[in-house]
Parts: sequence; C-alpha cells; structure tokens
Amino acid sequence: MDLKHLREKIEPSAIGDDMYGLISELYPICRSITGDGVRETLRILKTRIPLAVHEVPTGIPVFDWSVPREWNIREAWIKDPDGTKIIDFENSNLHVLNYSVPVHEKVELEELRAHLFTLPDQPDWVPYRTSYYREDWGFCLSQNQLDSLTEGEYEVFIDSTLDDGHLTYGELIIPGELPDEVLLSCHVCHPSLANDNLSGIALVTFLARHLQECSTRYTYRLLFIPGTIGAITWLALNERRTERIRHGLVAACVGDPGHLCYKRSRRGDAEIDRAVEHVLESSGEPFDVVEFSPYGYDERQFCSPGFDLAVGSLTRTPHGQFPEYHSSADNLQLVQPAALADSLATYLAVLDVLERNGTFLNQNPKCEPQLGRRGLYGMVGGYSDSKGLELAMLWVLNLSDGDHSLLDISGRAGLSFDVISSAAEMLIETGLLERNQA
Amino acid sequence: MDLKHLREKIEPSAIGDDMYGLISELYPICRSITGDGVRETLRILKTRIPLAVHEVPTGIPVFDWSVPREWNIREAWIKDPDGTKIIDFENSNLHVLNYSVPVHEKVELEELRAHLFTLPDQPDWVPYRTSYYREDWGFCLSQNQLDSLTEGEYEVFIDSTLDDGHLTYGELIIPGELPDEVLLSCHVCHPSLANDNLSGIALVTFLARHLQECSTRYTYRLLFIPGTIGAITWLALNERRTERIRHGLVAACVGDPGHLCYKRSRRGDAEIDRAVEHVLESSGEPFDVVEFSPYGYDERQFCSPGFDLAVGSLTRTPHGQFPEYHSSADNLQLVQPAALADSLATYLAVLDVLERNGTFLNQNPKCEPQLGRRGLYGMVGGYSDSKGLELAMLWVLNLSDGDHSLLDISGRAGLSFDVISSAAEMLIETGLLERNQA
Amino acid sequence: MDLKHLREKIEPSAIGDDMYGLISELYPICRSITGDGVRETLRILKTRIPLAVHEVPTGIPVFDWSVPREWNIREAWIKDPDGTKIIDFENSNLHVLNYSVPVHEKVELEELRAHLFTLPDQPDWVPYRTSYYREDWGFCLSQNQLDSLTEGEYEVFIDSTLDDGHLTYGELIIPGELPDEVLLSCHVCHPSLANDNLSGIALVTFLARHLQECSTRYTYRLLFIPGTIGAITWLALNERRTERIRHGLVAACVGDPGHLCYKRSRRGDAEIDRAVEHVLESSGEPFDVVEFSPYGYDERQFCSPGFDLAVGSLTRTPHGQFPEYHSSADNLQLVQPAALADSLATYLAVLDVLERNGTFLNQNPKCEPQLGRRGLYGMVGGYSDSKGLELAMLWVLNLSDGDHSLLDISGRAGLSFDVISSAAEMLIETGLLERNQA
Repeated sequence: MDLKHLREKIEPSAIGDDMYGLISELYPICRSITGDGVRETLRILKTRIPLAVHEVPTGIPVFDWSVPREWNIREAWIKDPDGTKIIDFENSNLHVLNYSVPVHEKVELEELRAHLFTLPDQPDWVPYRTSYYREDWGFCLSQNQLDSLTEGEYEVFIDSTLDDGHLTYGELIIPGELPDEVLLSCHVCHPSLANDNLSGIALVTFLARHLQECSTRYTYRLLFIPGTIGAITWLALNERRTERIRHGLVAACVGDPGHLCYKRSRRGDAEIDRAVEHVLESSGEPFDVVEFSPYGYDERQFCSPGFDLAVGSLTRTPHGQFPEYHSSADNLQLVQPAALADSLATYLAVLDVLERNGTFLNQNPKCEPQLGRRGLYGMVGGYSDSKGLELAMLWVLNLSDGDHSLLDISGRAGLSFDVISSAAEMLIETGLLERNQA
Repeated sequence: MDLKHLREKIEPSAIGDDMYGLISELYPICRSITGDGVRETLRILKTRIPLAVHEVPTGIPVFDWSVPREWNIREAWIKDPDGTKIIDFENSNLHVLNYSVPVHEKVELEELRAHLFTLPDQPDWVPYRTSYYREDWGFCLSQNQLDSLTEGEYEVFIDSTLDDGHLTYGELIIPGELPDEVLLSCHVCHPSLANDNLSGIALVTFLARHLQECSTRYTYRLLFIPGTIGAITWLALNERRTERIRHGLVAACVGDPGHLCYKRSRRGDAEIDRAVEHVLESSGEPFDVVEFSPYGYDERQFCSPGFDLAVGSLTRTPHGQFPEYHSSADNLQLVQPAALADSLATYLAVLDVLERNGTFLNQNPKCEPQLGRRGLYGMVGGYSDSKGLELAMLWVLNLSDGDHSLLDISGRAGLSFDVISSAAEMLIETGLLERNQA
Repeated sequence: MDLKHLREKIEPSAIGDDMYGLISELYPICRSITGDGVRETLRILKTRIPLAVHEVPTGIPVFDWSVPREWNIREAWIKDPDGTKIIDFENSNLHVLNYSVPVHEKVELEELRAHLFTLPDQPDWVPYRTSYYREDWGFCLSQNQLDSLTEGEYEVFIDSTLDDGHLTYGELIIPGELPDEVLLSCHVCHPSLANDNLSGIALVTFLARHLQECSTRYTYRLLFIPGTIGAITWLALNERRTERIRHGLVAACVGDPGHLCYKRSRRGDAEIDRAVEHVLESSGEPFDVVEFSPYGYDERQFCSPGFDLAVGSLTRTPHGQFPEYHSSADNLQLVQPAALADSLATYLAVLDVLERNGTFLNQNPKCEPQLGRRGLYGMVGGYSDSKGLELAMLWVLNLSDGDHSLLDISGRAGLSFDVISSAAEMLIETGLLERNQA
C-alpha cells in the first residue's frame, strides 16, 4: 500500500483521540535536555514504535559545543517562615528552574526573590524557565503567589544532580526504495508543556506508525531529540548522512486550535516548501506561510549555512505567538484532538505529495502522442471539453522535459496535484512517460 | 519596398471585403483532414497565391501516428418513415459526422438515436462532429428537429469512401535575406465553418499576397494544413527545417467581432510573444493575452517539448469561447470584413516589428557620441526637451550593448517601438550603430 | 575616526549655513565649460580643500569629441535706439548666450529677435541658454522686457574670445585602505544658477572636508568638472582608472526644498543603488527612486555602455522638474541651508553604509555557535525575546555564507542596517565572523 491509499483509509477523529491519549500519558514527566525524563519518554514511545535510543556521553565535542552534564531531579520545594510547603515540584515540574543545581538553605525573602520567576502579565500562570549553561537554582511561580509572600526566612530545597552522564535521543529509520531521506524531527526536552512540544512528539510518533504500514519511495528518518543541543549533537555525529536528506520538517506546536503555519526552509523555494504550500492552498482552510528566520526550533541548526538542508517547520500557532507559550497554561486543555488529527492529516498529505512528485520524461516528445489508440482520450472529436484528466495528460506530456516537476506542472496548469499526478500515472502505464532518474 | 512602407499603403476596408469574398467562396466545400475538399480549397487559393500542394500517402508513419486513410463523400441523407428526406448532406455538410463510413440501412428511431448528434443548449443549431480514428457513421442535426422525430423506421444512406489515398496540404515559401524563417500556419480541415477556420485561411492567404510585394529580412513559410495530423505530418517530414524557424503564429478565428487574443508560445517570453504584445498594447484597443496551454490549435504540436518552437497563436475570440464555435452558427453572418481587416493589419504590424527588431551594437560605446555634429541633435543647448527622437537615440545608444533588442529598449524607455526603431535607423545611417550579426 | 563616528559629531544646521555661504560666494561668477570662470571657482574651492587643478589643451581628442576652444567674456550689452543700455552682462551673466562669439553691430529689432531668448511661460524670468558647438551670439531676457521693446536700431556688443586654450577641472583623491574607489562628481560649468549646480559643488566640497577627517576603507575620488565634455574628457584621460571605481554618485540640485530623489545606476541593482535606497527608506522622509535613463547629468557618460559604472545620481528635485530650472529664478532664494545640510547628511549616511557593508564569512557555519559562552547571549533561556541585537547576530551568522552582504541581510531580516552592522562587528570581535576578502 502506498501513502495515497493509506490516507484514504485513515479515520481522523479516532486518531486525534489516540494522539491526545499519548500526550496525556507523557504530560507529567519532567523532561530536560538530558536525564531520566527523556529516557522515560522514549521508553513509552517504544511501546508504540520501534525507536532506537542513543546515549551520547557528557563532554563529547559537537561543533562549537560539547555535550553537557546530565541533570536529574528528585524533589524540590520552598517552605515559608511557618514551615509550610508553599511550592512543590510534586505539584508541577515547571516550579523548578530547569537545570537547577542542588541547594538547601534558609534565605530571607529579599534574597529569595532573585531566584523566583513569574509572568507579571499573566498573574495566574507559572512560567517555564531554564538555565542550561549558567549554574544557578531557581523556582517558578505565579505572580499572584509571589505577591502573597510575607517577609521572613524561607527554606529552599532542591535535590538534583548535575553530573557526567549522557544526552539521550530517539531515532527511527523507515526504509524506502531510495537511499534519499525525508527528515522528521521533534524536540523532547520540554517538561509539562502540552503543545510545545508533546503535540510534536505525538505527531511524529503517529507519522511513524502510518509510514511503517506503507511502502514508500523515500527513506524516512524520524528524530526525537532535545532542542538545540540535541540537533547539534545529531548533526555532529551524522554529518555525512545529511547529504542524503532531500526534504525535512520540524514538528512542533501542532495541537492548539489555531490554523496551520508553515515556515519555509532557508532556501525558500525548496521542493518541501512548494509541497507544503500546495497542500495548504488546496486545503480550503486559512493558513499562514512565513519566510525562514534563524529563530525558532531546530530548523535553526538544520538550516545553518554549513548544512542548509531543505527543512521547514510546519506548526499551528507558532512559538511565542500563543499567550500560553512556555507557561503552565500550555497544558492538556490547550491541545485538542481535532487539531492534532488535522495536523497529522496535513503532514501525511505533504509526504504523499513528496512521494508522488518528481520530474518525468515524455517518451514521445515530438508532437502529441496518439492518446486515442491507447484508450486515454474521448473518441468523438470536435468536442470542446477542455477540463479534467485529458487536459492534465496534455499538460504532463507538454512539460515533462525533465525541467518541470509535477508540482510545477500543477501550478502552471492551474490543476490540482492529484489530477496531474493521476494523469502521470496513466501515462506511465502506457509507456508514454518515465520517471526521470537523473 | 519594406513591410513598414507597405503597411502605410494598405487600405483596410477594401481588403476586409476581399477576405470576406474568399471566405464566401470556400464556405460550401466539405473539407476534412483528407480528401477532395482540401484539394478543392487549395486549388482556389492557388488562383491567388503560388501555393505548392503536397500529397502524403496513407500509412506513412509520422512520429506516434500514421497518415490516415483518405475520406471522401458524395451523398448522405436520412428518410423518415414516410420516405421524406429529413436530413440531407446537400443542404449542409455539417449534417454528416465527419469521416463517417458508408452505410445504407433501415433502422428504428431508437437505434438511430445513437448515431445522431445535437446541441441541446442551442436547439436551433447543428453541431460539427468528427470521428477520425474510430470507424463510425452518424448525422448531426438541431435539437428541435430531433425532438420532432416520430417513432418508426428510418432509412439512412451515406455514400462515402475511406480508402488508401493521401493527406493534402499547401505550402508557400517567400524568401527573404536570411535563411531564418517565420512560420505562419492555418488549418484547412474544417467544412462549412466560417470563423474556425475559413477566416484563418483568408488571413494567411492575404498575408502571403502582401509579403510577396515586399523585400523582407526573414524568409516566410506559410502552411495550409489539416489540424493536428497535418501539423504532425509536416513536422515529421520537415524535422530538420524546424531549426530555422525563429518565430511563428497559428492563425485561426480571426473574423468574429470580438477583440484580439494572443496565446503565448510555450516559452512565454519569446520575441514573438513580446512583439505581439507590444503591437496589441500600442493599438489602443482592448485585447487579451493568455499563457500557453497544451490545448487549442496546432501550436500544440509546434510547442511540443521535442520542438518547443517560438510559436504563439493570435486569434480574436478563442476557440470554444464564442457560442457559435463548432456549430452551424459559425457561418457567414459571424465573420465581418472589418474584423478580418483589423486582424490582417495586426498580423502585418507584428511581422513589421519582427523585421525591424534585433540587437544592435553601439559603435562608440564609451561616453555619448557627439550627435550635434552629425545633425542628429538640437543645436541650442540648455533646453529641457527630453522627449521624442533625440531621447530615443540616447536610449538606443545606451542599451545597444548586444544584450538588448529594440523591443527591450522600447519597453525600458517607455517609448514606442516605432520611435525607437526610427532612432536606430538614423544612428545606422551615420555609422554610430550596427546590427549585431552574432 | 571612522565615518560612523564622524556622522555622530556633525551639527547639521551650522554646516547648512556654511554651505550656503560658499554658494553665495560662487554665485556671481560667469562659469562655462571652459574659461576663467571655472578657474576662479576652483581657486575659491582650493581655499577649503586641497584640489588638484588640471588643464587639458584645446583640440585633444576625447573619444568621439575633442576639447573645445576656450571661451572668455569681459563685457556685453544691448543699447536701444535711444542709446540706453537695456541689457547688460554686468547685471547678470545669464543675459549672454553662453559661448557667444564676439559681435559689435547695429541691427533692426526684427533681425535682433533671432538672437533673443525668453521664457514665455515665466515672463519675469531670464532663461539660461548655451551654444557650445554652433558659433552664434545671443542674449537672454525676460519676456516682459522683450514685449516692451520698440522698433528701431539696436546696438549689440559682446566682448568675448573663443580661442585655443584649455578645459579646466578639479580633482581630489582621499586615500583609503583599499585601492577601490568611490567616485563623487559635480558639474562646475553653470554660471549664476544656485541649485543647478552650486549646491552640488558645495556638497562635494563639504563631503571632501569631512572625508579628510576620517579613516576610510575606500579611496574617494572627487571631481569638479564641466558637464558632459568634462566627464568625457576625464573618462578619456583616465580610462584605466575607471576599473577601480566600485560605486559613484553624481551630485546636483541638492539645495532646493523638495524631497530627495535617487536615480539608479544603469545596472539598477548595484550596491550603490541598494545603499542609497536603504538610507532613504530608513529616513522616515518622503523620497523618490527612479530608474536610470540616458538623460540627465554626467551619469550619462559614466553609465555609457562602454563603461557601465555603478554610478547613480542623488538630487533633491530632479533637473527640469522645478520651474526655476535653467532660469534666473534658480538663485540664492531657491536654495536653503536646511536642505543643503539634509543632502549632505544623506550623502554621508550612504557613504557610511558603503564603508561598513560587505560580505562576511561565518567561521563556524555548521550549527549555531554557542553565543552564551562568549557573552553574546542572554543567559536565562526559554525566554521569547526575538528582537534586537541577538536576533541580528543570528541573521548575520545564518546568511554570512559569502553570498549575502550586510545590506542583503538587513533587507531579508527586516532589521536596520545599523543593528545588522553592529551585530557583525560584535561577531568579528569574538572571531566568529570575518570579512570576505574574495
């Protein structure tokens, strides 16, 4: 079964609920760029797809960086002057500044304030903050709670470790006919944040499950990696493999109810860019397309000038543009099964375009071939039907000179990729067209 | 005399009437893609221009096709149950499905219906239908007449032949200074249809007559060929000659009162495309320009990817877009002398641009030459006249670096092709400019 | 001190007054394309900047031209039939047709009229007219004065000489780090006309003074030349030096209160074009940009196809588009100190962009470098600040592949050239970026 037929069999609403279930299961885990939270996350994913889990030791140089020490945390709280626990990591892992070093001391409120982070504009929400590369400790809480604190001595306790260990990531390769690869990547370093990026993890997991059911032209490489340092580590360890990557997408923020937004690859007019835009334009739904910028998710690394891979990012509301971003409000209420299912269907539609697209060669390029004697053309002539499949066949024949892909032809003909692709299939069956192997 | 001066001598209204007269003479003949109708048509044209008539035998392979058997018809009718002739080829050759095989039998109305063609949306008109590549017989009639038929046995008679013979076409070469050719093509396969394409036949015939009166830079090749199979046949037999074709136009539907419409060549930005568009833009009349598509007239063959000739199509209302298209209403009332004359004048204007256009080389490219001492420039300086011929000379000198044609310069300067071309002529006379021979 | 820091120190209003003072000093002199008026003008400029003055002998061939005879004038007048001087060169040098040959005779009004020039549409103004290349004599006067003349015999007297001599021009080279040059040119051939072009002379003079106070990357070549023949002469004598000219501007009409207008170089997308347009767009003031045309000032010669230098022209209201153009109304009331200062500031801003622009190479092109450990990045992560200098650094790193200049990056990032350039400087300091020497 190819991807086109698999897509026709899928029942979106059931899948949306399944994706939501996976997100719910992963939500409580305290992830970071290293440590047992990532391991536990990948262990759960392995119950669904045959991930390979890689461990890269602390200190390994990766381009301008090195793999950091591994962080783990067991317990963390603040007790007020009365000895009451007013903040507890047990309640939400967002309460701890991610990568906090261990601490256990009593401090006056004034001194404590330097270690407390809030969102003054959203006084009920707890922010998400990290300090990966500067040793520090801290707590995150709501502005309202901070305002209610009274003067006095507070006891702070963080039972964490920051030691040599490993950076952990998951990888799944689904082989296709070709060594050429499609890269699908998501980041697995965020703790209890649902849209950013449990939704992306769920999406790539379900893509994997579907792609395994198909036979594909491309080989698919799916990465579940910590953001930034994970992408850098993977690229450093797999530099030569990147030559095979033809197309790629970074998946994140795919569960909120906003409309889809595509951020182009650095190249701006790569095939992945045109494929995604064609699918979005054909959807009949509102969408946005934005140019590449060097700020965002791991497309920053994949599109650094030394790699310049054809990797874009397809999200719903982009990072930083929904108010709940990087706060306790990015929770299980923000993501919705219908949005998850729509995102997955769109990713599958894009991959289906990539699978079917390509340049082809008209085997009979001088004048039109006689479609009629091959059963490809209406038999009573003089009739002005210029629509549909016959016209699509004429377009495919006329432009299949090796310079125009089916996506190009679709755009120039003003016909859908589906009808152009179907016409190409019919022409291939009769020997009038061949896929360009060059 | 060159084309520019010939154009100034022409009296359009007289020519429109002459063209209409030729169309009226050709209208009654039953043409098809082969047979005596084409021969009779070309015989009449030969009384006006020195056409060469070529006969290509049935069965000759031409690319993916072969030359079909020759079709001729003498008589055809249907008699109703009372023995009354209700449809007769004598009245209109459209009544017979073009390429009908011979038949003589009696059939019930129900069985007959499968062989009858009408236009339900235009119940008074008789459609034009063909069956070149599937052996069949049939009759075309108005929907109103079909509705009036009563049950009973009908006698059908078609006295036609479909035998080995020839495909016939006409060709006229008008030599110019250069071996480089301009192709002008029309189709001669339609029976009693005035706009599509007796108007095209008349236009190319009158173009031929005028071009013969001029001395031209280009060699002109004029083709009077059956649609599709005629173009394919000509291309197959003249494949090497196509290398000389620099520009071309397919003429059809040039007699209706609609405005002119130019369909670009497959290349889209060929010199012919820019020349036609310049003439249309300069006309002050409404016009349309549409991109190439692989549906239409014989530009489909000339622009197939194995040839990709710079051939566009200049029509009035395009095929299929006027209601009378391919019906008995495409008759001598639809075409108008004034429209025919305007089409001819536009074709001549386009050819005139092609004749005069080209890239030139400024012989004095470093700084401006001293136009004043050559009598090319107003003598009292300091005067802010930046219009007209002097400015045109400065533009031609500035951009005649071999990369810009006069049409390019006209566009960039925002000056008419005529003033740019006149400026170039004056510069050539003084030796400041030379035609680029490269 | 570099140009950026010099610009910060400049006090525009004082400079505008100084420029106006220089224009007032030069205004009374009778300049032409040759002669003592140009010499006197350059002598005054030499009191401010160390100009080299060049004298090129009459008759020297310069491309299609030759250096003309030198023109000088001492006295000129017309006496009416009563013997009253009604027109006197003493009152305004515009009264004499520039390059008039000597004459002393009595003529009837009717005959005199052929030698009188007026502006009928502006009946109070005296036009500026020349006759460099056709021997003639004449007077310019207001239409009102002409209308008041009565019949009778008039005595005309012009005490001028037109003899072998020299064409005079000034040149100043301000060396920079590179042999590559920026050309700044103004014409010095107009008599008492303030905007066209004493304003341009003042602007280039003050540019020279400022550039001498800086250390620059580029070498600056400043030309004070007669229009057309002066540019042709300079190009003929310095043909090989033109290879070093990377960018250039022709300065004229920079003192009127209209807004700035940039006329692009013939190339249209040269770095000078983009630099000027960036500065104008960033100014917040209204401005115009027009395409190159081969009519105007000496960009006509610098952009002739044999040179095609990257030279544009930055003016305020362009020549011929202010009513006072080439008339006695282009006087000291038309030009304004504030406009002069604004023009100078804009020229300096453009040169500053040229000085700082260039392509650079990311020394760490694979993945992002770790900005944090170099003190270039905020330390608490997870924070959505995507604005400002950090983002500019990411853009510079991402696009510094040798193909994109800082101006390109500024445009693509939608960030000002200043912030992009500052980001580049910081990256250069940490060794992450190097100027592309290729």
